[in-house]
Amino acid sequence: MNPEEESGFLAMGEEIDGKKYALFTYLIETTLEPKSAAATLCREQSTALWNRVGVKEDFRPEHGAKVIGLDVLGESEKPNIELFVKGKKYYRAKVKIAHPTINFGPKLPNLITAAAGEGAFFCHGINTIKLIDVQLPAEFTKKFEGPKFGIAGIRKELGVNGRPLFVGVVKPNVGLKPKDFAQLAYEGLLGGLDFAKDDEMISDVEYSPTKERLEAVMEKVYKAEDKTGEKKMYLVNITDEVYRLEELHDMVAEHKGHTAVMLNVFTVGLSAARMIARKAKVPLFSHFDFISTFTRIPFYGVSSELITKIQRLAGCDAIIMPGFGERMMTTESEVKANAKACLYEMPGIKKCLPIPGGSDWAGTLRGMHEKLGTTDFAMVPGRGVFGHPMGAEAGARSLRQAWEAIEKGVSEKEYAKTHLELRKAYEAFG
Amino acid sequence: MNPEEESGFLAMGEEIDGKKYALFTYLIETTLEPKSAAATLCREQSTALWNRVGVKEDFRPEHGAKVIGLDVLGESEKPNIELFVKGKKYYRAKVKIAHPTINFGPKLPNLITAAAGEGAFFCHGINTIKLIDVQLPAEFTKKFEGPKFGIAGIRKELGVNGRPLFVGVVKPNVGLKPKDFAQLAYEGLLGGLDFAKDDEMISDVEYSPTKERLEAVMEKVYKAEDKTGEKKMYLVNITDEVYRLEELHDMVAEHKGHTAVMLNVFTVGLSAARMIARKAKVPLFSHFDFISTFTRIPFYGVSSELITKIQRLAGCDAIIMPGFGERMMTTESEVKANAKACLYEMPGIKKCLPIPGGSDWAGTLRGMHEKLGTTDFAMVPGRGVFGHPMGAEAGARSLRQAWEAIEKGVSEKEYAKTHLELRKAYEAFG
Repeated sequence: MNPEEESGFLAMGEEIDGKKYALFTYLIETTLEPKSAAATLCREQSTALWNRVGVKEDFRPEHGAKVIGLDVLGESEKPNIELFVKGKKYYRAKVKIAHPTINFGPKLPNLITAAAGEGAFFCHGINTIKLIDVQLPAEFTKKFEGPKFGIAGIRKELGVNGRPLFVGVVKPNVGLKPKDFAQLAYEGLLGGLDFAKDDEMISDVEYSPTKERLEAVMEKVYKAEDKTGEKKMYLVNITDEVYRLEELHDMVAEHKGHTAVMLNVFTVGLSAARMIARKAKVPLFSHFDFISTFTRIPFYGVSSELITKIQRLAGCDAIIMPGFGERMMTTESEVKANAKACLYEMPGIKKCLPIPGGSDWAGTLRGMHEKLGTTDFAMVPGRGVFGHPMGAEAGARSLRQAWEAIEKGVSEKEYAKTHLELRKAYEAFG
Repeated sequence: MNPEEESGFLAMGEEIDGKKYALFTYLIETTLEPKSAAATLCREQSTALWNRVGVKEDFRPEHGAKVIGLDVLGESEKPNIELFVKGKKYYRAKVKIAHPTINFGPKLPNLITAAAGEGAFFCHGINTIKLIDVQLPAEFTKKFEGPKFGIAGIRKELGVNGRPLFVGVVKPNVGLKPKDFAQLAYEGLLGGLDFAKDDEMISDVEYSPTKERLEAVMEKVYKAEDKTGEKKMYLVNITDEVYRLEELHDMVAEHKGHTAVMLNVFTVGLSAARMIARKAKVPLFSHFDFISTFTRIPFYGVSSELITKIQRLAGCDAIIMPGFGERMMTTESEVKANAKACLYEMPGIKKCLPIPGGSDWAGTLRGMHEKLGTTDFAMVPGRGVFGHPMGAEAGARSLRQAWEAIEKGVSEKEYAKTHLELRKAYEAFG
């Protein structure tokens, strides 16, 4: 790019109209001089050709993306990873770009195309790139509906305040017939679960059609409510082809107030989640399947924090995300950032419930609570409830006992001396 | 995992019922003994807990994924990339897994959950993993509709056989008002384009609403048909929120026979593409935005070849994919594999049109043709038509002239001596 062309994509130190731009932040590794690389990135993601042949015009002022910030973080003779861009020196830089929202409008697929489409990921001279943040003007986000229930709505449905929510993933996760599934759900609910939940791998399958499973479980939900005097819910995984989602949602919503739906959001598509959220009569939970295929590499893809934020914008009331602990292959700071993305103030968009998941049981509750620094979260144990040696009711009870210990300022080990279910949980999973 | 548990996830050398299983192939890097790692991968992606507490049962025979092939490719003291799994030795292996289709059924989101969801990407002891292939039994694929038109259908609509198709991406890609856009499209069509096409960045935007742009362009399409005596088409990018896709498709389909629709498939979601394809009245083209965020890293994510195959299964009639040439950051063998994924015999599923794209012009046509070894492809030049120094009509003409040269067995340079538009293209882009 010649200096004149480049200048049309640079606005460092200039004032820009905050209402008209989305701000995209990237980590890049480039063999170009970093400022040129950043300008190229702007050109490629907006108006690569900015006038017609032979016409005196310039689309850059209105439609061009512009570099508004550049931090060179370092340089190296070796790339992060050997891909396609070769050079003697690789610069790493954080680039902040103002991209005119007029180029895409308040639509998730078009926003994603602009921020993480061909322009960003096929940019001359840029070896690796990671989209780490998107900030949107209030004028833009107000055109999104966001979560319909949010944390407050979910708590209101349940009548539970001041403590984390307990969501048990019925296990064995695949293979159970509806009646057996419902029985396990019942036991977990009796023991103290707020939600009995489908695993991400069970859906409207031949061996357990949703309609049949729903009927079987709901009978038990109402029975558990009677027995315990607590509100209970069934979280149904409605992940399916997009053209079936509304039908499945509506089926589940027949038990409105006692049910919620789950989508494996990036397998059905973020926009399909928005489609369901807009008309949802029950809370919408998302599960993180497929997301790590593009978030885990530190210097490539898209950050998980941004993905959480966009799921919230799409209208997810609760977001199941990789949680703490080695198996979940996510740093503690990343889990915290993801939880915060659910909870920070976003104008006009409700807070959603963070659910860091993965190999949880009674013994991991205190750590979650301390690390998150709030009671506004849920846990989603599977084996920790349904693999408890005394059965699912005891497994669920062990969770509630762990919370009692935390509330009373007693250690779980101390509390376990007088609480059998908690003791057995420590023996089995500790 | 103890040997007994492991054995339930191993079926190497055993006969399996091919009708009941999808075959998933992965490249893994693991610190575990490779066979154990492969068995763990099966367990995590299927029935991690395979019996209820206290119940004598085993879900593994019917619902468990099973290792059916394992090639250890090498070992190293250093990982591909420092992520979360640490050890002294890293084994690299190709693992083939038979996963029971009963676990998900003929639904793309559920298939993706099984093959590339939490199970596969959060597997103890596996540092990096890439899903490189999915083979599906005919019993499964026959429940998919596949492309409605396919190559043959698109050629029939156009009445063009025996040569590649010429699809021109109107540029400047963003910012043009509908009338100006239509005029450029007209010039390109007059010059010899088969399709005038929206860029992936233009959609139903404020500055160029789809309805208005469609009306403006269609007037010119019909006029170009009259003038040239050739069939012409407008390829409209209908990428938008999922709940608007049908409306936009129907609007475009009012000009059925002279139009096609495009989706930036992984920004709207693969399943939304299937939703549109099932009812499509005009051909569906896909664009590759976002896909490279999870396909480019050689040892992590999902292979692009598989993504092409699944887009075909979802019903895309034509697939725009990263093409040849340095800018597209894709190896030649990968481009060829992607084109082949459109063209191989898949029982009951039509062939779709491969469109390797990126910085094409008259001079790149011969290379594409030779490398692909077929005329069943299209090219999607932008600047090569609309940045031609003599304008879009000449730009399009230069493509047709390049094809004439190839057909006549003359070099383009020779042919350019007597063909001004081709000569000017070489001067501008050569």
